[in-house]
Amino acid sequence: MKETTRRTLLTGSVAAGAALVAAPSLAAAPAAGRQAPGIYRSKIGSYELTALYDGTWFRKIDDGFVRNASGAEVNKALADAFLKPGIVPTSFTALLVNTGSKLVLIDAGTGGQLGPDTGALPGALAAAGVEPNAIDAILISHFHPDHINGIKDKDGKKVFANAEILVPAPEWAYWMDDARLSAASDAMRPQFLNARRIFRDIAGEVKRFELGKEIAPGITPVSAYGHTPGHTGFAVASGNQSLLVLGDTTNHPWLFARHPQWQGSFDIDGAMAVETRRRMLDRAAADKMLVQGYHFPFPALGYIVKTASGYDVVPVMWQPL
Amino acid sequence: MKETTRRTLLTGSVAAGAALVAAPSLAAAPAAGRQAPGIYRSKIGSYELTALYDGTWFRKIDDGFVRNASGAEVNKALADAFLKPGIVPTSFTALLVNTGSKLVLIDAGTGGQLGPDTGALPGALAAAGVEPNAIDAILISHFHPDHINGIKDKDGKKVFANAEILVPAPEWAYWMDDARLSAASDAMRPQFLNARRIFRDIAGEVKRFELGKEIAPGITPVSAYGHTPGHTGFAVASGNQSLLVLGDTTNHPWLFARHPQWQGSFDIDGAMAVETRRRMLDRAAADKMLVQGYHFPFPALGYIVKTASGYDVVPVMWQPL
Repeated sequence: MKETTRRTLLTGSVAAGAALVAAPSLAAAPAAGRQAPGIYRSKIGSYELTALYDGTWFRKIDDGFVRNASGAEVNKALADAFLKPGIVPTSFTALLVNTGSKLVLIDAGTGGQLGPDTGALPGALAAAGVEPNAIDAILISHFHPDHINGIKDKDGKKVFANAEILVPAPEWAYWMDDARLSAASDAMRPQFLNARRIFRDIAGEVKRFELGKEIAPGITPVSAYGHTPGHTGFAVASGNQSLLVLGDTTNHPWLFARHPQWQGSFDIDGAMAVETRRRMLDRAAADKMLVQGYHFPFPALGYIVKTASGYDVVPVMWQPL
Repeated sequence: MKETTRRTLLTGSVAAGAALVAAPSLAAAPAAGRQAPGIYRSKIGSYELTALYDGTWFRKIDDGFVRNASGAEVNKALADAFLKPGIVPTSFTALLVNTGSKLVLIDAGTGGQLGPDTGALPGALAAAGVEPNAIDAILISHFHPDHINGIKDKDGKKVFANAEILVPAPEWAYWMDDARLSAASDAMRPQFLNARRIFRDIAGEVKRFELGKEIAPGITPVSAYGHTPGHTGFAVASGNQSLLVLGDTTNHPWLFARHPQWQGSFDIDGAMAVETRRRMLDRAAADKMLVQGYHFPFPALGYIVKTASGYDVVPVMWQPL
């Protein structure tokens, strides 16, 4: 079957005779040509975690990407991570938590709307054997498009038909405020409009939560304001184990954990974002907590180590469940 | 379907009535209960690489695990990696190289013979859509069981029926030497016998290669003697890109890259193993080479950075192909 397909492809692009001559020197298995689904399972207490890779946005950056660092400094940080200059490969990894009684998705992915290499979450979920209809709740850290767009498909239909959607109350208040929309800069306006596109017609189904109270079994929202006004992390606890979900507290760790003082252009309140980042990373380092960072390299789970100048992330080692 | 299955399971273990009462409080999707297949694709030049996770051996260690470091020093290195004391989680990742004309497997996995969490390679290969029969060649770095046992299944049948098997000539000479078997210590004897179990009845099909000459398209064996007498790395080149396959030059990087002077109890010539390790890691660091380490955490690909006291591994960031 595979060889036939291959030959058909070849005869489509070159003369049939040449293809038949070339065929015997081809490997029996054609190259796959695309990445495998990104699925990584682990446990905390009795909860099963599944990291779901949604893709990578190859974000082209200019000198304004970090407000208080030069393009050269950012490129140096990229080079230290063996990444190309001028491009921040920003990956997206949502986290599925099976508490035994609830199936909870933390952040909903890009919906494929951040370039050709994004939108892998539904495929990863399918490969993990989970039906979108089985998701009981979606917890949203904040209203940036790469966290909420996956709630709907390209036709505007809800992807997770049975899921209750829970969002931070101050985040809702900020992005749904018509006065703020009117006053928004050209750069910010699309984000206001996008939040409305996702939430307006399902507003009645969206539950707005406050900090400090459990919103799903063992899951409590934690203040992480700064990146956006209502940006929220989550503490997940089961048995005597726990996980701190950082959301966008720290974007690419090779940039923003190593240089915690950097204010990203995407941080609405840069100074507060830095303060929040230091507070959360200090806590994670001191308590040797497992953390999840939405933009950390897949599987986006690791530990924080304090260094002389900032923090390092020690990624979890791929292990059996 | 899933709910039916779940209820059936429940009624199997508790009274039917109780199960019906309990059912509504369960998450709709049951926990998967096992790790997802470990498959990671990347490219060098026109070659497609597929890292295939075979599993992890939770190796209990004692003071003798590193000949020239105490158990306390090893435990400190494990703690720095957020791993438990007294256990080195030793993972196994084979590398499949599709050169376009050949499908080449570098090392063959454990065959599931290093504990319950090993032997995942055939499943990973299937999930990657590759038939075992499609493999054209298997390159063996050395004759330790975790690298050669996957050549055969539990019934002694060849797993990769059409693959040519290529092994380092000095490795063959060492392990197949009857005089050495007779003189072997009790600890070493099983390794001699295991090598014979794998290779004896297929000896005519096994090709023994020397260093420095291409043995598959773009793949050249590189001296890495020390871990075993014929232990061999591989340089893989396509276009202007290359990869250095380290084999077992560096076992768990948090232990042996960070502490390159450590002589593992599994290194037959500890001093030579250290010399080889430093030479290969120095080269990789100086040339910013992509490296693959059989016992590096999956996907077992990364870059080497020289530090004040040793080396660090910067794992590749999970990206689209």
